[in-house]
Amino acid sequence: MAILQYQAKKYQQGLASAVEDILTAEAALRIAINGSVFTITMRTPGNEAALVRGLLYAEDMYRDLEAHPVIAVEERNQYGYITAVAVTVDPEKLGKRDLNSRNLLSVSSCGICGNTELVDLNAGQSLADKPGTLSSTTVLQMFQQMRAGQNTFEQSGGSHAAAAFTLDGQMLTLQEDIGRHNAVDKVVGQLILDGQLGDAFCIIVSGRISYEIVSKAYVAGIPVLAAVSAPSSLAVDYARELGLTLLAFCREDKFTVYAGWVQD
Amino acid sequence: MAILQYQAKKYQQGLASAVEDILTAEAALRIAINGSVFTITMRTPGNEAALVRGLLYAEDMYRDLEAHPVIAVEERNQYGYITAVAVTVDPEKLGKRDLNSRNLLSVSSCGICGNTELVDLNAGQSLADKPGTLSSTTVLQMFQQMRAGQNTFEQSGGSHAAAAFTLDGQMLTLQEDIGRHNAVDKVVGQLILDGQLGDAFCIIVSGRISYEIVSKAYVAGIPVLAAVSAPSSLAVDYARELGLTLLAFCREDKFTVYAGWVQD
Repeated sequence: MAILQYQAKKYQQGLASAVEDILTAEAALRIAINGSVFTITMRTPGNEAALVRGLLYAEDMYRDLEAHPVIAVEERNQYGYITAVAVTVDPEKLGKRDLNSRNLLSVSSCGICGNTELVDLNAGQSLADKPGTLSSTTVLQMFQQMRAGQNTFEQSGGSHAAAAFTLDGQMLTLQEDIGRHNAVDKVVGQLILDGQLGDAFCIIVSGRISYEIVSKAYVAGIPVLAAVSAPSSLAVDYARELGLTLLAFCREDKFTVYAGWVQD
Repeated sequence: MAILQYQAKKYQQGLASAVEDILTAEAALRIAINGSVFTITMRTPGNEAALVRGLLYAEDMYRDLEAHPVIAVEERNQYGYITAVAVTVDPEKLGKRDLNSRNLLSVSSCGICGNTELVDLNAGQSLADKPGTLSSTTVLQMFQQMRAGQNTFEQSGGSHAAAAFTLDGQMLTLQEDIGRHNAVDKVVGQLILDGQLGDAFCIIVSGRISYEIVSKAYVAGIPVLAAVSAPSSLAVDYARELGLTLLAFCREDKFTVYAGWVQD
């Protein structure tokens, strides 16, 4: 079962207590077909044979239902999770799509090669060095402000929101999108357009926090990331490494701190 | 506001009624930089300037905070939504990343060029021709079965599930993943590995249904797709075009049919 245990600090009605939380594991998987990299995908480890087979089928790379390709494990990470597989298929049966045309995330955002490139983007800065600490009261007020502004969600129940706030809880921009990563891109983009990127201290997202969201906040130099739902294991690992404060499960009068800290 | 209205049929406690539902709009956006396609992303239309600016910042393609690139609209779709923009930036300020290295989804899965390639993959077959119709009772039973099997979600609250069922509601496989598209790939892959792809009549997903999920179900030849949460506008448009039955908001004793039909 691809879950991992994390130490965290839970706040409820202003009181903090230490908790052990179970998070869904997230890890990159690089898939090579007959020696060429086909894609790198972020996923929960487990049942790689089915994931690879289904993805290749959906992408029309290999659709033979009888002969199963050989899938060999090439790399594992520190948790023992598979991070690279080599698929060998009969070249005659390979889909017509060009192996190099698809969805090949570059190394800096794939999570396989560590945070080297990400840190480069931020001139090696750990966000923990950024002055200022949110108070737990401000955290809850920010969530109320965001929820009140989610117009599309009110109407359709089917969109994500992200919003940026100053250290003292003033909302700078709120953006909605069907994709959580798009909502965060829109927030950072709006801050840039408004000349307010330097004023943003916290990004709140309505959904979950994956590795990709942490990397976007880090690259934008915004030191606090908070979510209504769960973080992934990799999101917490990277937040801790990059000096971000990461809060999740922010609902009603409570939230949990997985990395960094807030003032009681 | 990027929402669209759809006619649908809502079932509650076995009774059906016609409803008008508002769905979050989803559309592809092709982003070209200085004449080369940088990426195609599925997103909710609106505030393209911020989306492009934030994405280019996150991907280290353009990080100058003073000089704003020129973003010109190149194409719109039938709803008037922007589907292609051309970004012009000072080449001196362009990030060092190779323009062709990133996340360039191939045309068949981008939603810009219509369903031509998707239909080709299925030998031009509309899934509406597939014999059999689910009953509304079976729908609710399938959801209960899936929920009971979501082990990772039980523990972490942070993963998606997808499961495949036969026409009479027998569960063939259940897969969990932090990414909804991965969970569906794992389901289709497991069906292939078990030689059961032809037995699958319905895929249920725990989250929302976007265009990408519809395309995966269609390519796998599975005619019914159902979700706990909302569908996107494009998911409904494509389900109708490709002959899929699409149900969403399946909770407790109710669900809504957006495309195709179920037996009362």
